[in-house]
Amino acid sequence: MTTSNTPTSNTPTGDATATAVDPAVREELARLRDSIDNIDAAVVHMLAERFKATQQVGHLKARHQLPPADPTREARQIERLRALAENAKLDPAFAEKFLNFIIAEVIRHHERIADDTAAPASG
Amino acid sequence: MTTSNTPTSNTPTGDATATAVDPAVREELARLRDSIDNIDAAVVHMLAERFKATQQVGHLKARHQLPPADPTREARQIERLRALAENAKLDPAFAEKFLNFIIAEVIRHHERIADDTAAPASG
Repeated sequence: MTTSNTPTSNTPTGDATATAVDPAVREELARLRDSIDNIDAAVVHMLAERFKATQQVGHLKARHQLPPADPTREARQIERLRALAENAKLDPAFAEKFLNFIIAEVIRHHERIADDTAAPASG
Repeated sequence: MTTSNTPTSNTPTGDATATAVDPAVREELARLRDSIDNIDAAVVHMLAERFKATQQVGHLKARHQLPPADPTREARQIERLRALAENAKLDPAFAEKFLNFIIAEVIRHHERIADDTAAPASG
């Protein structure tokens, strides 16, 4: 009793969920994806704000010859985020991986800032 | 006029910023780091919520034999997030890397759900 009317199977650019899926399922999937998209938009804006703060940290560190990385601070951040994640029922290992991913990007920024600041200074 | 009383220099677990740094700089750094910590807590809670939604997507896909990955949906998400990032003055390349990082984790979850669901089915 499934619909058997030209199911455009395997079109390379077609939507995998558009063919032969119960409309109720498709609707539920769309509802969940709308929430995911909203969350992603929020997270992107949070990360934009986070990088604004870390850029300021980078300039501060460069101006005062502080090292770009700070292992003690990072260890504390990881411990704290793991605890927060556990509370929120998010895999703490993932939270740690996530923070490391962000910090790697931040350190890249800081090194760039340090390079830019070091060039004309030394006086 | 700086305080000169037993500066615990170079203790292995000491804070790199605690030694020989202008108190005003240290204060500014602490202020920025408090904001970063607040943002991180918010993001961790957003991601917890995001994974709740993707877990539901995973179960839905497993129940209806939909493939764990959906390249068309992912391409659309990446394009959208890059545009949002640009607007928020976040590096679009970083936003894309970030989404790929999250999606990789989600697909791992979906595959695990699909395996769990496939085992007793096939009837």
